[in-house]
Amino acid sequence: MAASSLPSRTGAGLVVTAHPGDFVWRAGGAIALHARQGMRMVIVCLSYGERGESQWAWKTAGAALADVKAQRRAEAEKAASILGAEIEFMDAGDYPLRSTPEMLDRLIDIYRTVKPAFVLTHSLADPYNVDHPEATRLAQEARIIAQAAGHKPSPDLSYAAPPVFLFEPHQPEQCDYKPNVILNIDDVWEQKRSAFEVLAAQKHLWDYYTRVALNRGMQGGRNSGRSMQYGEAYQRLFPMVVETLA
Amino acid sequence: MAASSLPSRTGAGLVVTAHPGDFVWRAGGAIALHARQGMRMVIVCLSYGERGESQWAWKTAGAALADVKAQRRAEAEKAASILGAEIEFMDAGDYPLRSTPEMLDRLIDIYRTVKPAFVLTHSLADPYNVDHPEATRLAQEARIIAQAAGHKPSPDLSYAAPPVFLFEPHQPEQCDYKPNVILNIDDVWEQKRSAFEVLAAQKHLWDYYTRVALNRGMQGGRNSGRSMQYGEAYQRLFPMVVETLA
Amino acid sequence: MAASSLPSRTGAGLVVTAHPGDFVWRAGGAIALHARQGMRMVIVCLSYGERGESQWAWKTAGAALADVKAQRRAEAEKAASILGAEIEFMDAGDYPLRSTPEMLDRLIDIYRTVKPAFVLTHSLADPYNVDHPEATRLAQEARIIAQAAGHKPSPDLSYAAPPVFLFEPHQPEQCDYKPNVILNIDDVWEQKRSAFEVLAAQKHLWDYYTRVALNRGMQGGRNSGRSMQYGEAYQRLFPMVVETLA
Amino acid sequence: MAASSLPSRTGAGLVVTAHPGDFVWRAGGAIALHARQGMRMVIVCLSYGERGESQWAWKTAGAALADVKAQRRAEAEKAASILGAEIEFMDAGDYPLRSTPEMLDRLIDIYRTVKPAFVLTHSLADPYNVDHPEATRLAQEARIIAQAAGHKPSPDLSYAAPPVFLFEPHQPEQCDYKPNVILNIDDVWEQKRSAFEVLAAQKHLWDYYTRVALNRGMQGGRNSGRSMQYGEAYQRLFPMVVETLA
Amino acid sequence: MAASSLPSRTGAGLVVTAHPGDFVWRAGGAIALHARQGMRMVIVCLSYGERGESQWAWKTAGAALADVKAQRRAEAEKAASILGAEIEFMDAGDYPLRSTPEMLDRLIDIYRTVKPAFVLTHSLADPYNVDHPEATRLAQEARIIAQAAGHKPSPDLSYAAPPVFLFEPHQPEQCDYKPNVILNIDDVWEQKRSAFEVLAAQKHLWDYYTRVALNRGMQGGRNSGRSMQYGEAYQRLFPMVVETLA
Amino acid sequence: MAASSLPSRTGAGLVVTAHPGDFVWRAGGAIALHARQGMRMVIVCLSYGERGESQWAWKTAGAALADVKAQRRAEAEKAASILGAEIEFMDAGDYPLRSTPEMLDRLIDIYRTVKPAFVLTHSLADPYNVDHPEATRLAQEARIIAQAAGHKPSPDLSYAAPPVFLFEPHQPEQCDYKPNVILNIDDVWEQKRSAFEVLAAQKHLWDYYTRVALNRGMQGGRNSGRSMQYGEAYQRLFPMVVETLA
Repeated sequence: MAASSLPSRTGAGLVVTAHPGDFVWRAGGAIALHARQGMRMVIVCLSYGERGESQWAWKTAGAALADVKAQRRAEAEKAASILGAEIEFMDAGDYPLRSTPEMLDRLIDIYRTVKPAFVLTHSLADPYNVDHPEATRLAQEARIIAQAAGHKPSPDLSYAAPPVFLFEPHQPEQCDYKPNVILNIDDVWEQKRSAFEVLAAQKHLWDYYTRVALNRGMQGGRNSGRSMQYGEAYQRLFPMVVETLA
Repeated sequence: MAASSLPSRTGAGLVVTAHPGDFVWRAGGAIALHARQGMRMVIVCLSYGERGESQWAWKTAGAALADVKAQRRAEAEKAASILGAEIEFMDAGDYPLRSTPEMLDRLIDIYRTVKPAFVLTHSLADPYNVDHPEATRLAQEARIIAQAAGHKPSPDLSYAAPPVFLFEPHQPEQCDYKPNVILNIDDVWEQKRSAFEVLAAQKHLWDYYTRVALNRGMQGGRNSGRSMQYGEAYQRLFPMVVETLA
Repeated sequence: MAASSLPSRTGAGLVVTAHPGDFVWRAGGAIALHARQGMRMVIVCLSYGERGESQWAWKTAGAALADVKAQRRAEAEKAASILGAEIEFMDAGDYPLRSTPEMLDRLIDIYRTVKPAFVLTHSLADPYNVDHPEATRLAQEARIIAQAAGHKPSPDLSYAAPPVFLFEPHQPEQCDYKPNVILNIDDVWEQKRSAFEVLAAQKHLWDYYTRVALNRGMQGGRNSGRSMQYGEAYQRLFPMVVETLA
Repeated sequence: MAASSLPSRTGAGLVVTAHPGDFVWRAGGAIALHARQGMRMVIVCLSYGERGESQWAWKTAGAALADVKAQRRAEAEKAASILGAEIEFMDAGDYPLRSTPEMLDRLIDIYRTVKPAFVLTHSLADPYNVDHPEATRLAQEARIIAQAAGHKPSPDLSYAAPPVFLFEPHQPEQCDYKPNVILNIDDVWEQKRSAFEVLAAQKHLWDYYTRVALNRGMQGGRNSGRSMQYGEAYQRLFPMVVETLA
Repeated sequence: MAASSLPSRTGAGLVVTAHPGDFVWRAGGAIALHARQGMRMVIVCLSYGERGESQWAWKTAGAALADVKAQRRAEAEKAASILGAEIEFMDAGDYPLRSTPEMLDRLIDIYRTVKPAFVLTHSLADPYNVDHPEATRLAQEARIIAQAAGHKPSPDLSYAAPPVFLFEPHQPEQCDYKPNVILNIDDVWEQKRSAFEVLAAQKHLWDYYTRVALNRGMQGGRNSGRSMQYGEAYQRLFPMVVETLA
Repeated sequence: MAASSLPSRTGAGLVVTAHPGDFVWRAGGAIALHARQGMRMVIVCLSYGERGESQWAWKTAGAALADVKAQRRAEAEKAASILGAEIEFMDAGDYPLRSTPEMLDRLIDIYRTVKPAFVLTHSLADPYNVDHPEATRLAQEARIIAQAAGHKPSPDLSYAAPPVFLFEPHQPEQCDYKPNVILNIDDVWEQKRSAFEVLAAQKHLWDYYTRVALNRGMQGGRNSGRSMQYGEAYQRLFPMVVETLA
C-alpha cells in the first residue's frame, strides 16, 4: 500500500450491507480505493450473517449462535481492516433481517455525522435473499429522514442526502439490476482479493467474484475505450448534476 | 459573453437532430456551454423541418417547398451561430424523415473526423413524432459502424465510440424518457434564450422551454444540494467508467 | 337493429387492421356500437390475409392467390356490412405485410378526410405476428404526418390527431398489452357474433373470442361496479384530457 | 368565484395525502374544480408534515413539535377552505409516516361513508420520500377492505371501490410516474394559486408548481387539440369502463 | 379416478394461498394432476377468506365470524379432498391478511419436511387484493429461510429451495403477470370443475374460470403445436436448469 | 467425441447468428451438446463479420474484402465442424448487416426443411451492435412466415413454429437480457473451448467467455441445487407447454 498516484480526496463514504460477505464481494474495491484516496470509509453491517451465510459453522453439532456471530464478526472486522475501513454492526439478525426503530435512529445519526459523499448498498430487489432489499430500504429511509429538520432538531445541522450507488447482486439479471457505472479498481485489486481470503468458508466464491471483477473490467474497457483490468459495477440512483458532459 | 471562469476543454461534441428546433430547445445549453469551454461543437441537422414544423409558412397560399427550406435553414444557421456551433444539413426530408445509405456514410465520416467526446440526440421513443427516433437510430448506427476497421479501412484510424446522451423530448413521460444527468446551464442561459428567439414562428414554445429549464434547474439543486437556476436533462446510455465515486 | 336508446353521435371512427379477421375479433363491438350511435365507421384493411390466415384455402391443390384474395375480400366486406362500416383494402400482402409510400400517402388522405374522433389498431408488439405491429406503425405514422401543414398544403386543412386505442391481441400478456379501457358492447353483441360467423374457416375462434368478450365483460363489471355482460378491451395511448374526474 | 358554466355534479371525491403541501401542489386544481361542480371534497391528511416539510420552523431555537404541528394544521385548514374542501388529520407523524390499525380502520369508515366517485393519492413509488408511497399503500388497502362484507358487517352496506388517480410527484420520471389523464383546471387556477400562497414557507415552490401547471396545460392542448392553459396530471390505475370511445 | 396413463412421480408439491377460492380457481388443475401422478400435494391456506370472500354469508343478519370461518373451512377441505391434496390452515385473517412470526416459522418447517419439488403461489402484485401479494411474500421468505443452516440447526438438514410458479390472478394484465408456462390439465379437468362446484357462493365464477381454462388451453395448443383443451397458466420465477433444449 | 451417456435424440436445431464469433461464444455449448445427443445442428451465419469483427485483418495495408471474408469463412467452418454442426452463410454484409427478400425466402425454406425443435438467436436488443437485433428480427420473421400455408403452398407442408431461445449478448444487462434457462454444458465444454481457439484473432475473448461459462455454471448450481461447472444462459421467448411442473 505504498505511494499511489491516486488523487487525494477528503470526505467520507458510507456502505450499508446486510451481511459481512456483501461488502467484500460487492464493494470491496470501492472501499479500498476511496480509503486509499484519503476518504474515511464507514461500513454499517446490519447482521453477522450468522444463520444464513455461515453454513459450514452449523455442520458442527452443538454450534452456538453466539460463537458463530463472534467468529463472523472477527472475520468482518479483519476484512474491513484490510480494505481500510471502519465497521459498525447492528446485530439485526439474518434470515430474516429485521430492522428496529433504534437501528433506523442510529443509522440516521451516522448519516448526519459521517456526511457521506456517497452511500453504497444492495440492489432494490433480490428474489434470492430477503435481507438484501431490507438493507437497501433501511439505507434509503435513513438517508431521507436525516434531511428532516424536525428530526432531532439542531441549529447547526448541515447534511445533504448523498447519491446512492447499488452494488452488484449475485445474479444481476434476476434482480432487475442494470449497472450504469463501472469503477476501475485496478489499483486496489490485490487488497480486494486479500479481503476475499478472510472469508475462508466461502472459498468457492473467491474465484467467482474474481471472474466478475475481470469481466466488469473488460466491459469497462469497452465502454470507455480505456484499458483496465478489474471493475466493480454500480447502479446509480438519482440523476447526477454536472458542469460538463465531456 | 465576456470572460468566463469555466474550465477550458479541448475536443469536440456532436449533436444529431431531426429538425432545427430540436437542437435549440433540447440541447442549446449543452451546445453553448461546451463551445464556451473551448470545444468544437458540430450539429448535424437531418432535415429543415420544412413540412412538419413550419406550420405558419404554409398558411401563405402558394408557399414553395424550396422557400420554406431556405428560410428554416437560415434560422437554423443563425441559432447555431448564437450557440457557437458549426452546423451541417442532410436534407433528409421530414414527416417522414427518411435516411439513405449516403447519409449514413456521411455521418460515419463525421464521427471519424470529429472524434466527439459525446454525442447528443433524441430519445429512443417518441409516439408524437416518428422523425425523432429515426434520427436516434441513425446516430447510433453511424456511431457503431465508425468503429468497424473494415469500413473504409485506413491504417491510422483512431476512433472510440463516444457516450450517448439523449436530450429531453417534448413530453418526457410519454416517451419513456428517464433523465439521469442534469447539466447546469446557468452560465449560458442567456445564449440559449437568444437562440429561442430566432425561432420566431414557435414563439409559444419560448416560455414552455424556459419553464422546462427552470424546473430542471430546481431539480438539479435538489439532487445535488448545490444551488443552480437553469438545467438541461439528459439520459445517458451506456455505463460510465470512473476512477472514483466521489 | 331496431330503435336504440344509445346516445346519438356524429363524426367518424377509423380502424386500421392487418387482416380481415382482426377487425372482427378485436374491434367488432366498437365498430358496431359507434355505427349504431350514428358515427361513420371506416375500416382500412391492409391485406386480405390471403397467405397466412387462409390455411384451409390452400389445402385445395392448385389454389390460386387471386381466388383466395377474392374470397377473403368478399368475407371481409360482408363482415364490415354486418357491423355497419365502410371498408377499404390496400392489398399490401401478408406474411409479410409490406407497406409502400403510396399506402402511407393514401392513409394520410383518409385521416384528413375522415377526421376520425378515434383510431383503433393493433398492439405495439406481437411476437406471434409481424404484420400486426407493422399495421400499427403505419397507422401511427400516417396519423402524425396528417398534421404536417407542408404535406399537400391546403389553406383549409383542419385536422387534429385523434386518440389511438389498441385492440386486444390473441395472447395479450405475450404482447406486453395492458388494457386501460373496457368498452361495454352488450348492445351490439349479437351483431359482433354474426360477423364472427362470416369467418367460416376460423370456426374454432368463434367460441374463443366469445369467451374473451364474456371475461372482459365480467372484468368491466368488477372495475366499474356496474353490471355488463360483454366487453372489448382497449389500451389507450396518449393522455386523455378531461374536464372532470367524476 | 362568481357563477360558473361548469356542469353541476353530486357525489364526493376523496384525497389521501401524506403532508399538507401535497394536496395543494398536486391536487389543488381537482379539489377546487370538483367542489365548484357541487361535489363534496374530503381530504385525509395523514400527517402535518411537521418534521420533514417545515424546515423553516426548526430554524428557531427551541421550537416545539406541538407548535409546529399546530401551525401547519392551521395552514392546511386554510388551504382546504380556499379549495372548498373538508379536511381530516390522522397525526401519523412524518419522516417517517407510520400508519396504525386504527388509522386503517378510520380510513375504511371514511370510504364507506363518503362513497367517493374517485380517490386521489400519491404515486406508487417515490425514491425521494418514503412517506408518499406509504400514504398510497394505506389508501389502496382501505379502499379494498371497505369492500369486504365481513368487515364491520352491516345489512345496508353499499360501497363500490372507486377509481384511483395518482397525482404528480415532484420529479415524475424518477418516480416511474406516467400520466394518462390531464385535467383542465383553467376555471379554478386562481383558487389553486391562492392556496399556494398559504404555504408561505415554501415560497420557492409557488413558481415551480405554476410552471408545472402551465406546461401540463400546454401538453393538454397538444393531446386534445383544444385550447387550455393550466393542467393537472394524473395517472389512472384500473381500467375505465365506457359506453363509447368518442 | 381410475387407472391413468400419466407417468408416475414421487415427491411433493406445495401450494401457498391467501384464501380457499384461490387454490381451486388458479391451481386446481396442477394440484389434481400431480396428485394423480403420485405426488403428495400440500396446500397451506393462510386464511378462510371469511371477511372478504364470503359476501353472501354476511347478508344474514347476525352472522358470526366463527360460523363463517367454519363454513369456509369445510368447503376448502372438501375442495382439497376432491383435488387429492392435504390442506393446512393458518387462520391469518383476511382483508387484511396479516402474517406473524409463528406463521413464518411454521411455513419454514413445512418447506423443510415436505421438501417440495415446486411451490405454487400468487402473483407478485395484485392491485385488487392486498392479501395475495402478502401470501406470495410469506411463501418466498419461508422458502429462502428454510435454506439457512443456522435456522433451527440440524445435522441432517437436506433441503433445496424449489422453483416457484405463480398462478394466474383474476385480471392478469393489471397484475403485470406474464405466464411463461402452460400446464395441460385435460386429464384432470373434471376434477377441477367438481372442485369449483363446492364453492357454491361464487357460482358466477364457475363459468369465468372454465373460460379461462379453455382459452389457456387453446393458447397452449398454439404455443406447442400439440392439441390440448384445458390449460392453467403459470409464471415461473428463477431460471430453469436443463440438460437439453429439445 | 467418444461414447457418451447422453440420451439419444433425433430431430434438429437451428442457430441464426449475425457473425461467426457469435455462435461460438454464445451457443457453442448448445450446438455441441445437441449434436452429440444425435440431433442435426444447422447454423445460418448471416455475414462473415468481415468489416466489424476482423479488426486485426485490416491492420494489414491493402487488405482485400474478399480475402477477409474467405479467411473468416474458413474459421467459421472449422469452428462449426468442431461443434458438430452444418453451416450456411448468407453473405449479408456486416456493420451494417442488411437482409434482402431473397435471404428471408431462403431462411423460410430452411425452417421448413430442417423443421427445428428449437431456434437459437440473438437478444431482442443490443445497443452496442445493430447487426445482432437485425439477425433476431429476420429469424423471427422467417419462423412466422414458414407457418403461412399460402407461402409456397404445398399439400404436404408440415411445420410447427419452434420455441425461440435467445443466447447471451456481450453485456447482458445493457441489452435488457434476462435469462430464464441455464443449459448444463459440462459434457461438451472441451469442445466449446476448442472452438474458441479457432478464433485466433479474438484471443482476448477466450478467457472472458470461459469466465462467463463458469459463472453461469455456478448460477445453474444455485438455481437447481445440482452440481454443475459450465453453463450457457438462454432467454426463452413464448410460453412452454408442459405435462408436469415437477
